[in-house]
Amino acid sequence: MGMNSADRHIYFDSAASTPVADEVIAEMLPYMKQQYGNPSSIHKFGRETTRAMQLARRRVADLIGASPREITFTSGGTEADNLAIKGVAVSARNSGKGSRIITSSIEHDAVLEPCRDLEQMGFKVTYLPVTEDGMVKPSDLRDAIGKDVALVSIMYANNEVGTIQPVMELAQIAHQAEALFHTDAVQAAGKIPIDVKNLGIDLMSMSSHKIQGPKGVGALYVRAGATLSPILHGGGQEASLRSGTENVTGIVGFGKACQLAAERMQEYRRYVSELRDYLVDKVVHEIPHSRLNGSRMARIANNAHFTFFGVNGEDLIIKLDEKGVAASTGSACSVRKQKQSHVLKAMGFSYEEITGSLRLSLGMQNTRKEVDVAVEALAETVSELRQLSPFKSKYA
Amino acid sequence: MGMNSADRHIYFDSAASTPVADEVIAEMLPYMKQQYGNPSSIHKFGRETTRAMQLARRRVADLIGASPREITFTSGGTEADNLAIKGVAVSARNSGKGSRIITSSIEHDAVLEPCRDLEQMGFKVTYLPVTEDGMVKPSDLRDAIGKDVALVSIMYANNEVGTIQPVMELAQIAHQAEALFHTDAVQAAGKIPIDVKNLGIDLMSMSSHKIQGPKGVGALYVRAGATLSPILHGGGQEASLRSGTENVTGIVGFGKACQLAAERMQEYRRYVSELRDYLVDKVVHEIPHSRLNGSRMARIANNAHFTFFGVNGEDLIIKLDEKGVAASTGSACSVRKQKQSHVLKAMGFSYEEITGSLRLSLGMQNTRKEVDVAVEALAETVSELRQLSPFKSKYA
Repeated sequence: MGMNSADRHIYFDSAASTPVADEVIAEMLPYMKQQYGNPSSIHKFGRETTRAMQLARRRVADLIGASPREITFTSGGTEADNLAIKGVAVSARNSGKGSRIITSSIEHDAVLEPCRDLEQMGFKVTYLPVTEDGMVKPSDLRDAIGKDVALVSIMYANNEVGTIQPVMELAQIAHQAEALFHTDAVQAAGKIPIDVKNLGIDLMSMSSHKIQGPKGVGALYVRAGATLSPILHGGGQEASLRSGTENVTGIVGFGKACQLAAERMQEYRRYVSELRDYLVDKVVHEIPHSRLNGSRMARIANNAHFTFFGVNGEDLIIKLDEKGVAASTGSACSVRKQKQSHVLKAMGFSYEEITGSLRLSLGMQNTRKEVDVAVEALAETVSELRQLSPFKSKYA
Repeated sequence: MGMNSADRHIYFDSAASTPVADEVIAEMLPYMKQQYGNPSSIHKFGRETTRAMQLARRRVADLIGASPREITFTSGGTEADNLAIKGVAVSARNSGKGSRIITSSIEHDAVLEPCRDLEQMGFKVTYLPVTEDGMVKPSDLRDAIGKDVALVSIMYANNEVGTIQPVMELAQIAHQAEALFHTDAVQAAGKIPIDVKNLGIDLMSMSSHKIQGPKGVGALYVRAGATLSPILHGGGQEASLRSGTENVTGIVGFGKACQLAAERMQEYRRYVSELRDYLVDKVVHEIPHSRLNGSRMARIANNAHFTFFGVNGEDLIIKLDEKGVAASTGSACSVRKQKQSHVLKAMGFSYEEITGSLRLSLGMQNTRKEVDVAVEALAETVSELRQLSPFKSKYA
């Protein structure tokens, strides 16, 4: 069987989603068929699932140095971001506090879109610029902040180019102005050591399916004492911060995924970053007119993001897919919108630099052999596409 | 092994949650380990999950006579209710239409609490009364409605007493005033035949875990042409009505559960209603001073709701649980709030009638043998509790 046949597809899109770990599936299964009680029920079936959720909550909390009661389960990272941003904004306005929000121009849409919705509701939002590496400068936050700010929301690690933000410093600046600090850690939690207390984080969004847990579940860390309004109202679950029958099976899986991530973090970081560095070196050496984007140092282990000049990234993905390699232009979520990356724009990229960009994101399941195969396919495809390009004479 | 030992616990709380069907689990598993792509990705892994979601969407739509594009997946019934109510209210206000909402006083908290939140935001909400059987009278809606009403939201079947509402007539009255009609069908969808087109329903909330699908997933049917604002903003999934990476595994399971529900509906209704009637007859004949609540005729098949005079329902549940029988006072979601049932209050029940109430809800897994065991335990427990009651002389 050829390595490029469809059933040997190589997956280099772990930043978009990951396979659920065997250990996670094993812990989830009993909660589908045997322990299916509603956690709100006071009988045996309800107590079983309540206990399972307590364990999961502790595991999620332990991963980030929080207390279990500071963990609110949600349906995923997007809901956690929406809850943090709208929840703090609405709560601040209701209590007569300043309600301006400061965020960055490279946030995920799950942060930017709630901000835009708040603007329509009359809130003020400030969008900070970033460096060409995709970094928010603390001095820019210092200049922008004021007593009218309720919340500063800056992502932990960018989903497209992998740049890690100076979270601790940003949180300190937020606190000096008595604003809360939220970070979308969907790409970071479980992949780099995070201690929310040490870093001074007030709210933090997490997602399960980025760390070999199931889709459809995530969490918002809310520091004890921070106040926010719910966005889903009803039965009062999750201490009334998030109503709805709890996704017990998903929560159990997420808890296990967090435990595994904590146990394997060192191994993950070493293995994945070495493999990523091998990939990056191979690409920039073997493919002419290619460039790594984002910070080389302050970078999440699994991210490699390139520009291939004279090539259209979407074409590249389609051709790579035909050759059995799954890659991405950046954010999976923005593909349907057919829009240019707002992240790369904010980093000051030209139209050509944006168009030619490609993200390869790695996981524990990837191997050197897969990298070799992928880079070969990539070199071949880039070369083919350049032959067809109007800029042929420039890059081919 | 005794029938009352903990590992032989009998489950009479299917209205709170249900075990996931084997066929459903079997369809879900491949989407955890092999087909884990993000549906927004354009490569093979993304296309696989997109296809799986299309099938699931068709299955959900088929169950209720809708078109697949009219189905928006959510994290469950509560989110569907919130989306329908807040989504229509906010959209109506933004477009300058009347934005009053009419609902009933026996809705689930997932409808009432969003309504209360809207009231805090300046919206007007009218709460219709019900008959002593828990039925909304169409004439009451006719009296209350006006051109200022954007939405009428009346549940399909009540979660505590099982009363089925005159949905078709209520929808007609709503439409005469050019209001949209939403129904929370969490307890009804998959259990009774529903044709949204025939009934004139504009929006309908559904839940997966009430019909042997997984927890953490549900859907909102939105008639093509009905407009509403999203409550979760971000990557623009679900035609921008519900952002967030789709819970593919859960959605696949929900789709399968809907298909099974459609196939087995006749069998379900016959089996479960016969068993329920057997239970009801046994209880009212064998336990003195007991009464069935709710409508005998317009009633969902799986619901039996009683008042046992001179007994505290919570004590009853705890004692029954010790004897290996899982029951409920009514809504699982209201237990934590330690509050009296607003449903029974609205039906005009006295304090004693509310306090002594108990719900036994049934599923396909229950047997006559289990009913016999449960009623024996119930009779015994009611008698014991009455011995301890201050009203001993009255009922014991």
